Amino acid sequence: MNIALSTRTGGTVPEVAARVRAALADQGFGVLTEIDMAATLKNKIGVDLEDYLILGACNPPAAHRAVTADKQIGLLLPCNVVVRRDPDDAGAVLVEAMNPQIMVAVVPDNPALAAVADEVTGKLQAVINAL
Amino acid sequence: MNIALSTRTGGTVPEVAARVRAALADQGFGVLTEIDMAATLKNKIGVDLEDYLILGACNPPAAHRAVTADKQIGLLLPCNVVVRRDPDDAGAVLVEAMNPQIMVAVVPDNPALAAVADEVTGKLQAVINAL
Repeated sequence: MNIALSTRTGGTVPEVAARVRAALADQGFGVLTEIDMAATLKNKIGVDLEDYLILGACNPPAAHRAVTADKQIGLLLPCNVVVRRDPDDAGAVLVEAMNPQIMVAVVPDNPALAAVADEVTGKLQAVINAL
Repeated sequence: MNIALSTRTGGTVPEVAARVRAALADQGFGVLTEIDMAATLKNKIGVDLEDYLILGACNPPAAHRAVTADKQIGLLLPCNVVVRRDPDDAGAVLVEAMNPQIMVAVVPDNPALAAVADEVTGKLQAVINAL
C-alpha cells in the first residue's frame, strides 16, 4: 500500500496550499489545523527542512461516521495533506494526502470503517486530481 | 497491533487534557494542535458526540529524525493523543496516544524509522503511565 495519494505541481508551497484548500473545500473538507513543520523544527531545534506544511483536513459527515464505527479513530484524524517543496526539484511542489486505507490496514474487520475509508479515498483522490 | 497506548482516569476532559499536556512536556512533546471534535461536529453538522479532544503532540528531535527517514511521514504527524469521555462511564476519561508502531506497520523495511518509532513509543508510554 502507498501511504499517500499524491501529485506534483509547480508554484510555491503557500500558493499550492491555497489551491489545495480550495480543492478540499470542493470535496466538503475543512482545514482544521495547519502546521509549518519547517518553521517548527527551525524554531525548536535549529534544523533546516525544505518548506513543509501539514494541513489537517476534515469532512465532518465522514469523520462522524468514522468515529461512530471506531471511537479510537480520532488517532488518525484529521486526514493530513502534506504540501512540501520537492527536495529533488526546487521548482516543484509535492502534495500528498494520507491514504485512508491506512485506517483499514491498522483497524481490520470493521466494514463500516472500511466503507468510510473507501468514500474518503475517492474524495481525496478527486482533490489530488484537481490540482 | 493495538492502535492506541491508553489509560483511563477520572476528572473532566479539560482537566485531564491539562494533565496530558504537562506529561507530554515532561517527555519533550509540545502540543501543536488541538481539535475539539465534539464542538466541530456539533457546529458543522449538528450531531452530538461525547467530549472528544484530539491533541497533536510533537517531539521535535524525533519528528526531525522521522521526516529524515521518510519524507512522507508527515502524513502521520503529529502524534495524536485523544482525550475523551468514556461513553460507558460518565465519570471516566480515556486517554489514547497513537501507537507509533502504526508507522512501522504501514512503512515497513525502514530501520531508521523503526528506531524512531520505538523511541517515541517509549516516551508516549511514559506519558500514559504518568497519568
